[in-house]
Amino acid sequence: MPHATESAEDRLIARYFRPLATAPGAFGLLDDAAALTPPPGSDLVLTTDGVIAGVHFFPDDPPAQIARKALRMNLSDLAAKGARPLGFLLSLALPSGIDETWIAAFAKGLGDDAERYGCPLYGGDTDHTPGLISVSIAAFGAVSQGKMVRRSTAKPGDRIVVTGTIGDAALGVRLRRDRALAKTWQLDSSAISHLQARYLLPQPRTALTHAIAQHASAAIDVSDGLAGDLAKLCRASSMAAEIDVDRVPLSDAARAVLDGAPAQLENLLTGGDDYEIVLTLAPDDLPAFQEAARSADVPVTEIGEVKNGEGARFVRAGRQLTFTRASYSHF
Amino acid sequence: MPHATESAEDRLIARYFRPLATAPGAFGLLDDAAALTPPPGSDLVLTTDGVIAGVHFFPDDPPAQIARKALRMNLSDLAAKGARPLGFLLSLALPSGIDETWIAAFAKGLGDDAERYGCPLYGGDTDHTPGLISVSIAAFGAVSQGKMVRRSTAKPGDRIVVTGTIGDAALGVRLRRDRALAKTWQLDSSAISHLQARYLLPQPRTALTHAIAQHASAAIDVSDGLAGDLAKLCRASSMAAEIDVDRVPLSDAARAVLDGAPAQLENLLTGGDDYEIVLTLAPDDLPAFQEAARSADVPVTEIGEVKNGEGARFVRAGRQLTFTRASYSHF
Repeated sequence: MPHATESAEDRLIARYFRPLATAPGAFGLLDDAAALTPPPGSDLVLTTDGVIAGVHFFPDDPPAQIARKALRMNLSDLAAKGARPLGFLLSLALPSGIDETWIAAFAKGLGDDAERYGCPLYGGDTDHTPGLISVSIAAFGAVSQGKMVRRSTAKPGDRIVVTGTIGDAALGVRLRRDRALAKTWQLDSSAISHLQARYLLPQPRTALTHAIAQHASAAIDVSDGLAGDLAKLCRASSMAAEIDVDRVPLSDAARAVLDGAPAQLENLLTGGDDYEIVLTLAPDDLPAFQEAARSADVPVTEIGEVKNGEGARFVRAGRQLTFTRASYSHF
Repeated sequence: MPHATESAEDRLIARYFRPLATAPGAFGLLDDAAALTPPPGSDLVLTTDGVIAGVHFFPDDPPAQIARKALRMNLSDLAAKGARPLGFLLSLALPSGIDETWIAAFAKGLGDDAERYGCPLYGGDTDHTPGLISVSIAAFGAVSQGKMVRRSTAKPGDRIVVTGTIGDAALGVRLRRDRALAKTWQLDSSAISHLQARYLLPQPRTALTHAIAQHASAAIDVSDGLAGDLAKLCRASSMAAEIDVDRVPLSDAARAVLDGAPAQLENLLTGGDDYEIVLTLAPDDLPAFQEAARSADVPVTEIGEVKNGEGARFVRAGRQLTFTRASYSHF
């Protein structure tokens, strides 16, 4: 009889995903939908991003990392908009080969990050797919009403600042595809694991959310490469950006690669998956922002200036670099 | 140079999806995220549901119908919760074989329904996939604060009401898989097209949203079959339901099938994809609800009663039916 049976899907959800649904409005995932009372005076900020096996990750990547990367990509978008995380919805498509161990590890990784970033699960949709693993997340955050940090509001004379280091993930994915590159690039094991970790697991700059909301004139998260994402910000703002290439922050591992293979510079600047934030701010706001970043323990580096005109120019020793490709696109 | 180029993805989004992003807070899909100012005094209601080729639709189904079905599944969830639609996020994974004509038709269908239901696009994520077409939607609606209609709040003595007719889509998908059944079931062409249309294109009961919010004690949308979904409502409410099978509303086409093939009754009651709403309400609320449904031109039928106990019982001529399967599960 119907009432006696729960489907396999219900059982998996109850066992592995219900513990992530800690918000009262998620109703323990026992309803068709969730309810969220928006924080008074706030706008909701909405974003969606996902990963597909063979496109954004390798099918044998650890399930916990796949889950965490999918959530963190969205958290990075929220941080760039000055929005603090409120929660997320998960859409998960799994092929037949996936067993309960995989699901348990996936949910564990997701739950760890949901807790770490204060971003609980509000609902989801799980399906069997004849295709490959696919994880799509819709995340929502809160900003003061009317205060979402846009791409389109950079002003001439604004300083351009980037968080963390650039290009590590682009090198990491190359290493993952071709281990022989570690030898070509003469990397030690700590450099190798640094670069690969940066590809596997983004560090969303959630800790800077408040400072970005307070000080940034415009911002975008760097997911498709610094050059391409900055170009998008310039287009949206109808402005130009001039970047001093020698100021772009690089990790020791990325510097080691560049020492032996200077041609990798283009890959560093146009490769994707950084999940850092590039933002613009009025010169007067720079000291307070830098101070807030120090308190939050997030490295930030001033790398250039917003100017009238169009396009993101990357300049080294007075010469403008040209790139063979602008930005990473999955299409 | 980066600023001169937009990716193929950017171009497709600009051309086909930007016209759907009519809300000011969607920023023409030109930002990382969207901003939504919640209606004062409202809770946001959040849901996500999607379709995958070969699982929820046939890969050669018309792209406009695929898009509309994906959105309407979510609109049905919102309606069952008494929430009026505010907008949605789209996550779209497309294999290489998909050309621009397909995308144009998909976006056209989605846009038509976004307009029809007042549910604009707020953002999205498009990716190439080595797998099959996959469409995931996260939709959000609004209810008065604390007033989302739950599954878990049915009371003994409440009347059970269902919208529309039950079982058409379950027959429609069987016909779609095996055209010879039309002969077996002796269906005329109008019955065939009725059943297939009900499978291809749900009719979310958005017009009843306000009446459901006002009168329902509990509700669930019927997506996995009346028997299974009612069983979920019973479990969540710790109640039993007794359904008079002869009162379950059937279309003329479904009656024609039952006349020749009475064993299809189980399929009608347990098959999925109805996207009707089953709700419970206090007897005193019934007349006002029925009047509101008449005004909204949505047929509603009283089919049973909530009782103390557990399980959804389907009774005909004093005997309880038993089903070999409880409800459709994709897992």
